[in-house]
Amino acid sequence: MSRHILVVAHGSRRESSNHEVEILAKKLALLATEFDSVSAAFLEMAEPNIKTGLNKLIEQGANEIIVLPYFLAAGRHVVDDVPEDIETVKAEHPEVKIQVSEHFGAVNEVPGLLLKLALGVA
Amino acid sequence: MSRHILVVAHGSRRESSNHEVEILAKKLALLATEFDSVSAAFLEMAEPNIKTGLNKLIEQGANEIIVLPYFLAAGRHVVDDVPEDIETVKAEHPEVKIQVSEHFGAVNEVPGLLLKLALGVA
Repeated sequence: MSRHILVVAHGSRRESSNHEVEILAKKLALLATEFDSVSAAFLEMAEPNIKTGLNKLIEQGANEIIVLPYFLAAGRHVVDDVPEDIETVKAEHPEVKIQVSEHFGAVNEVPGLLLKLALGVA
Repeated sequence: MSRHILVVAHGSRRESSNHEVEILAKKLALLATEFDSVSAAFLEMAEPNIKTGLNKLIEQGANEIIVLPYFLAAGRHVVDDVPEDIETVKAEHPEVKIQVSEHFGAVNEVPGLLLKLALGVA
């Protein structure tokens, strides 16, 4: 049983922004000991894209993949674009369990973290 | 002394996505008792834009405004676009203290919250 996390972000023209997401995936990997790997993929403007990211894990023998949409609000990317790419891969690989979490912005802790940010500046 | 928080998000074509940010500002307002108000503004595709959001607070007598860039990665929006709008208003109102926090994705708690999201699905 091989379980993996794929963090899916928007992707940016700025390479350092995409790198920030890759660093985040590495930090998550240190915490996510229940999973065999954590990697990152991008909706657009950066590589690997979502399909490539999923297919790479499947080629490596993944039985289960949890996709974490690293987006703050449920705009069209979260509602349409990301699910569309995932559904394509799901249809090609019905043997792999691919699940998608809520988008990151839906987490309850967000307002408290914003307060912390504000008080850090004030 | 009138202190305010302005949450600045990207903005979406989906009205419900922008509404999600406004709800977040309301949740933050309940926690942020040190501040006189919390409101939201958008870089693009939604109203108010950043300049309008800041100017509204200044018209209401704000002495200090903390801007929270509600973005996950430091792409060009965080590095160029948001600061540009803020600098314009700052130049017009040197009497108001306008400060900008780090972008939300820089918060240390992010990896732990992503793990929580993943375990919620697993």
